[in-house]
Amino acid sequence: MGNIKVTIWNEYRHEKKNEQIGKLYPKGMHGAIAEGLEKAKGFSITTATLDEPEHGLSQKVVDSTDVMLWWGHTAHKEVKDEIVERVKKRVLEGMGLIVLHSGHFSKIFRALMGTNCSLKWREAAEKERLWNLEPSHPITQGLGEYFELPHVEMYGERFDIPTPDKLIFVSWFQGGEVFRSGCTWDRGHGRVFYFRPGHETFPIFYDDNIRLVLANACRWAAPRIIKVDACPNTKPLEPLPEHK
Amino acid sequence: MGNIKVTIWNEYRHEKKNEQIGKLYPKGMHGAIAEGLEKAKGFSITTATLDEPEHGLSQKVVDSTDVMLWWGHTAHKEVKDEIVERVKKRVLEGMGLIVLHSGHFSKIFRALMGTNCSLKWREAAEKERLWNLEPSHPITQGLGEYFELPHVEMYGERFDIPTPDKLIFVSWFQGGEVFRSGCTWDRGHGRVFYFRPGHETFPIFYDDNIRLVLANACRWAAPRIIKVDACPNTKPLEPLPEHK
Amino acid sequence: MGNIKVTIWNEYRHEKKNEQIGKLYPKGMHGAIAEGLEKAKGFSITTATLDEPEHGLSQKVVDSTDVMLWWGHTAHKEVKDEIVERVKKRVLEGMGLIVLHSGHFSKIFRALMGTNCSLKWREAAEKERLWNLEPSHPITQGLGEYFELPHVEMYGERFDIPTPDKLIFVSWFQGGEVFRSGCTWDRGHGRVFYFRPGHETFPIFYDDNIRLVLANACRWAAPRIIKVDACPNTKPLEPLPEHK
Amino acid sequence: MGNIKVTIWNEYRHEKKNEQIGKLYPKGMHGAIAEGLEKAKGFSITTATLDEPEHGLSQKVVDSTDVMLWWGHTAHKEVKDEIVERVKKRVLEGMGLIVLHSGHFSKIFRALMGTNCSLKWREAAEKERLWNLEPSHPITQGLGEYFELPHVEMYGERFDIPTPDKLIFVSWFQGGEVFRSGCTWDRGHGRVFYFRPGHETFPIFYDDNIRLVLANACRWAAPRIIKVDACPNTKPLEPLPEHK
Repeated sequence: MGNIKVTIWNEYRHEKKNEQIGKLYPKGMHGAIAEGLEKAKGFSITTATLDEPEHGLSQKVVDSTDVMLWWGHTAHKEVKDEIVERVKKRVLEGMGLIVLHSGHFSKIFRALMGTNCSLKWREAAEKERLWNLEPSHPITQGLGEYFELPHVEMYGERFDIPTPDKLIFVSWFQGGEVFRSGCTWDRGHGRVFYFRPGHETFPIFYDDNIRLVLANACRWAAPRIIKVDACPNTKPLEPLPEHK
Repeated sequence: MGNIKVTIWNEYRHEKKNEQIGKLYPKGMHGAIAEGLEKAKGFSITTATLDEPEHGLSQKVVDSTDVMLWWGHTAHKEVKDEIVERVKKRVLEGMGLIVLHSGHFSKIFRALMGTNCSLKWREAAEKERLWNLEPSHPITQGLGEYFELPHVEMYGERFDIPTPDKLIFVSWFQGGEVFRSGCTWDRGHGRVFYFRPGHETFPIFYDDNIRLVLANACRWAAPRIIKVDACPNTKPLEPLPEHK
Repeated sequence: MGNIKVTIWNEYRHEKKNEQIGKLYPKGMHGAIAEGLEKAKGFSITTATLDEPEHGLSQKVVDSTDVMLWWGHTAHKEVKDEIVERVKKRVLEGMGLIVLHSGHFSKIFRALMGTNCSLKWREAAEKERLWNLEPSHPITQGLGEYFELPHVEMYGERFDIPTPDKLIFVSWFQGGEVFRSGCTWDRGHGRVFYFRPGHETFPIFYDDNIRLVLANACRWAAPRIIKVDACPNTKPLEPLPEHK
Repeated sequence: MGNIKVTIWNEYRHEKKNEQIGKLYPKGMHGAIAEGLEKAKGFSITTATLDEPEHGLSQKVVDSTDVMLWWGHTAHKEVKDEIVERVKKRVLEGMGLIVLHSGHFSKIFRALMGTNCSLKWREAAEKERLWNLEPSHPITQGLGEYFELPHVEMYGERFDIPTPDKLIFVSWFQGGEVFRSGCTWDRGHGRVFYFRPGHETFPIFYDDNIRLVLANACRWAAPRIIKVDACPNTKPLEPLPEHK
């Protein structure tokens, strides 16, 4: 089997506009994520960002992607509807999609969920502990019972999502909230994974556990088939009486 | 408890354009559905159709609806996006939505599901037998183990939908196909029921079992709460150490 | 509609053996639960305990119960298999079952789940905050976004249960854990609700929020139908060719 | 990666008692299933039958099994409870289990489901068409949209099972029924697949599509981890105030 073709999409605005964030992620968050996947082996990695033509997501790029990761925050509205539609069509045909952190409000995630995807939030650099509810799931292979992130933005319930097919992680926050931090859904022939951590002001994407989860998730979300949608008029398989 | 406020939305084109369909449904399919609900008692019924201003779905109408039924077919694209958004917002706030037959391809159903909602189909006036998989579900109260419709349009699997929260009916078709004909999903605070039967050229909406299911479904889908979406910045509930 | 017939089953050993617990629950935990339901109105309440003949669960009692609550801890093994089988049969026929706290290890809960139902635990009188994930669910009507219990035994993930049909509450614990504290499953024609709080050394069953949840849950779990199991040999509904 | 260790368990009574069945399956149904898996490659296959000591399922055999297949019919009651418990424990620790046809009433399947697992049935050698609802699922790789079996025993809904995690196949029967013929559930760390076809009087286990499904299912159900159950008393991860 060849490498899994991963496209990491990043809004890539914070890193260019905010000096501190730029120092933390000199190659962009997409660069840090790419670095983690490269170390994990088995991936052919492309990156794409908002300000490129077609947001870096030409038909050709999308059609040759097995798994897409999506990070967006301040510019969800600037993502063109036709590109969102292109990505969505590809997910329903079988591409995997991994939505990160503030991507909960991205057009693509909301379009696939059908809900508001709203939540509670707080920026107080508090501690998060992610509990692993599914130690046998491919996404958690190699992880322990939990892992911690010392400083994060908090996301709290109620997270307005459809009941996940599988709830993988639940987070405990120092300030008193909980969150369904790792959730999977099938949509069409594609697999979707939402993963909560990943704020731009913290070095989340350099964390070893985060990188392990993302590499696992890319393998889990790789297409089993790619199948174009159809709504065919079909002949009967059994003899039918005539009806006038 | 007062009556459940039901709004029956119908595209209402077939009945006006096609003489035979017009004879079958002289008051429109919405009229036949309304008649069934009236007999069932407990509902305050409004109807709305595509060619009315705002498709009959003004903010006021939508805001005062507990449960909406949706029948569309040839003119899905003519439904304005802003009206779809208005209905979707209300579903996520708690309104019930019952999507009928060819409404599987309506903008509102696809927006709530996040998938293509495609299927196989055939117009051969064949027999359908709907098996009741959940005799304890509120939607099937009063039904037997199955019921039959002598002449229907066939819909066959694979139906491209997210895994239903509850699969209520599975259909057997004379021509050899099967279909998940009754499915429920929660979306936001609202309940969604897709119900397969209801083709414009057959007297489906005069059928007693169909009317029983629709009345049951309207009761089941009535709002438990109405809650406006929010994504609040919240204060910690536990003391947090200072972080510089 | 008449009252919902509730049978509260309690092991009733701690209260008799331990003086402090006896003072906290002079009428047993079942007595405190019964008191809460009586205030809520609409219930006809019976109690039953381990040391009664047939554990207080004669065929007649079980057959006339709409919803059973179950509290057990130290004596799960003393519950006779035939009584467990009797209760399970009735759940599958349509009776509601509400399993409380340490009842996670009861024979009846494990038999209905098919899993170990194990978890992490700690007795340190810490704070618990239960987050309400489903404000539109009948079980949470009248509750706010969360409620707190000042001193509880901790239960932590991974809770070895099948994926719940609906996850209602997730708990935050002061000591750093999380837990799926309110879960629902359908089994046969009956509804099952597991509710985490309820330790014998704390006044949990006098708490107003707990009592609200239990009354709501009893209403939600009341039978929609009662249907005896069968596995019938059935005649074909369509003509079949002869086969030699 | 080494071979997947498969143990095929068969009641193995029909084949010995009934001459015609014995001719159809001279090596037992387990032999025919084994033959199919051998052709598929990648499996180390063991068989075990009811009348062997410990039903062929010694602790050693069970502990070295990755995936178990289970066919039983007339002698479910003769399977010892302690062996059922041994197999169940292993499933919850991570072993895969594939339950075939009349195994729906086996002790092991009912213990893992928590329900009656009853259904309708008829022996009329009618046609079955299995519709593939999940073409992207590992279990259906290589299959088309449907496949047919010319002569089968019919199983019809309502099948008394918990809502499947994933519904893979729905069957159409010539006599007018439908059935959820391929269903998956996670239980503990193990995966369970129920697959309907497989009657003793028909050459089902020689069918190429059946063999493809069984080989796929064995790969899908292979353990990701093996983890012994525990219910540990755990220390807090965060400082707790003292409570007297």
